[in-house]
Amino acid sequence: MREVYIVGIGQVPVREHWDTSLRHLGAQAVLAAMADAEVEHLDALYVGNMLSGALNQQEHLGALLADFVGYRGIEAMKIEAACASGAAALRVGYSMVASGLSDIVAVLGIEKMTEPKGRETTAALAMAADGDYEADQGVSFVALNALLMRRYMHQYQVSHEEFAEFAVVAHENGANNPNAMFRRPITANDFVRSPQVCSPIRLLDASPIADGAAAVILTHKDVAKSLTRPPVCIAASALAIDSLAIHDRRDPLFLAAGAKSAHDAYQQAGITPSEVDFFELHDAFSIMAALSLEAAGFAERGGGAHLANEGAIRIDGRIPICTMGGLKARGHPVGATGIYQVVEIAQQMRGEAGGNQLTSPRWGMAQNIGGSGASIVTHILRAP
Amino acid sequence: MREVYIVGIGQVPVREHWDTSLRHLGAQAVLAAMADAEVEHLDALYVGNMLSGALNQQEHLGALLADFVGYRGIEAMKIEAACASGAAALRVGYSMVASGLSDIVAVLGIEKMTEPKGRETTAALAMAADGDYEADQGVSFVALNALLMRRYMHQYQVSHEEFAEFAVVAHENGANNPNAMFRRPITANDFVRSPQVCSPIRLLDASPIADGAAAVILTHKDVAKSLTRPPVCIAASALAIDSLAIHDRRDPLFLAAGAKSAHDAYQQAGITPSEVDFFELHDAFSIMAALSLEAAGFAERGGGAHLANEGAIRIDGRIPICTMGGLKARGHPVGATGIYQVVEIAQQMRGEAGGNQLTSPRWGMAQNIGGSGASIVTHILRAP
Repeated sequence: MREVYIVGIGQVPVREHWDTSLRHLGAQAVLAAMADAEVEHLDALYVGNMLSGALNQQEHLGALLADFVGYRGIEAMKIEAACASGAAALRVGYSMVASGLSDIVAVLGIEKMTEPKGRETTAALAMAADGDYEADQGVSFVALNALLMRRYMHQYQVSHEEFAEFAVVAHENGANNPNAMFRRPITANDFVRSPQVCSPIRLLDASPIADGAAAVILTHKDVAKSLTRPPVCIAASALAIDSLAIHDRRDPLFLAAGAKSAHDAYQQAGITPSEVDFFELHDAFSIMAALSLEAAGFAERGGGAHLANEGAIRIDGRIPICTMGGLKARGHPVGATGIYQVVEIAQQMRGEAGGNQLTSPRWGMAQNIGGSGASIVTHILRAP
Repeated sequence: MREVYIVGIGQVPVREHWDTSLRHLGAQAVLAAMADAEVEHLDALYVGNMLSGALNQQEHLGALLADFVGYRGIEAMKIEAACASGAAALRVGYSMVASGLSDIVAVLGIEKMTEPKGRETTAALAMAADGDYEADQGVSFVALNALLMRRYMHQYQVSHEEFAEFAVVAHENGANNPNAMFRRPITANDFVRSPQVCSPIRLLDASPIADGAAAVILTHKDVAKSLTRPPVCIAASALAIDSLAIHDRRDPLFLAAGAKSAHDAYQQAGITPSEVDFFELHDAFSIMAALSLEAAGFAERGGGAHLANEGAIRIDGRIPICTMGGLKARGHPVGATGIYQVVEIAQQMRGEAGGNQLTSPRWGMAQNIGGSGASIVTHILRAP
């Protein structure tokens, strides 16, 4: 199996892109990544996307986008794993290069959620949950997360305001990221006073619906050597699933798929959690940030929020998270998020993280979560 | 790169399955394939599906189905390439085993098209075409194929009735397949007198909307040796794209992506078209059967229908096609079709094709087409 490297990155700023179509957003990200890598040809394009059918009345994104960027005749397809679609597509691209089936591929994460042509966005997002036993009963995605958060607060005796640090740090980091949707720092007071969305979740617990596209170019060592950018190695790639419906899980407050995929990833990379220099986690809601820290082995169960309040998740902390703003401040265009995460890890490793730059990070980890924890993908990247 | 084998097959009869849910259909096919292979564990499940979001209000099929068949913790995801979703998922499964990332995986093709909960089926299918330049202009999928057929008839001076043989042979073969939706033979006269759907396409030019699920179990040589079933080798796997919109193609009557993926597949398998013993092609409409025969090198351009009328496509012909009924008679549950095709090739190679059994076929080819030719996947299988 060949080692796989990220040799180019591209991203569109996360915004409400009223004037830019789905295909233009995708093409901008892919062409930016190709320009960054200085490659002029692709063997394949893998597209992570969840909702193009529901919101843009367009399936078949693989062919649409591969043709639109100018590469008729190559391989292309769309990969879907709810909000983990981006990282799932990365895993497919990784496999194609690792196996020797392809030499140079692009992996694009894309979602255009504002200006829906079809279904209403909240209803569309609920398709990540169990249709028969959750969504059809009227449980929206924010409601599922609210149930988890309420249970967590009760079981571990954690107050709502103890989650503030996740949002405060995300906004602080987002302020320095020109591609972030929200660039205004917030205070813990803003957090606790923000409007109630679905008790106990308040507005500043939740990541925003947004439009975005991010892409990486993958290749193997021989090609990577001949290119300009310092190649970032994908040292581990793992995906695990849990039940779609929360009520089917043995312990709803433990992300079993997160623990499984993180465990597999540590094994593949040959490292322990203590060696991870920073962690791009999936803070779709602040409760998910806490659960992801716990599943990945950075905090005790019930200790995710405490870890945050010890200052550990800040840029200068023990395990910085969401270093470019995370889902909360950079924004969460669902199928694109998993690729934004690895693009940001590459930025850190290439010394291109601006005001949020970490000091020579060696290992970066990304965890992309689909549904309320049903599909979790963990990637570990190694600095050049 | 490891060689990949099909060691188990499973299929649900193609029907209007009013009493069976999406998840039950999928589980039946996967569990049947696992029972056939006599394996009790999977490393991963790859699901080919196009329309679960639009028609079943359910995305995230990977986790849903992997959990429902009892395998929490494994890897799972959905792959979409319009009507070529099944074969695209097969290619992902193939890559995962070939690379060494997985040892035993299931690939499921599934679609539940009758009883739609969401969008109307014709509108949903149009999402395989270019949304901005085709579907939004009111061109349905049958209309796109009608435009192609009309142009073909004019350019190559072929009459509508000369396409009859495709439907006649498909129904003749479907009559012997218990999993086929239509098991009644038809005559050329039935064909030309069938109701007009979208001139020149008549009802018996078109494959039916249906519910279905089919699965294969893939593994590498070492595991295959230890199992009971004669292992069918995936000797070639290739996917190529063309423009989504027909009007963007250099020659609308040439399936460039079909020619490219077939060419790549012949190279990988080390064979020429003349060595292919039978061809499971994508006869969604009879015009597509003609174009696929031409793109794959079995007929001259404009000669697909003539080849059929020479008797070449029958079970005892030079290049039998649609040996278990094809899309026309077996039925076309879109995302499932690509897997039904390879399941049927395996049936032929294992001597399980009943009344349609070919005499010791060595090479079988499948071509699965997405959209009006925008994503075309070619697989070549080698008999045990």
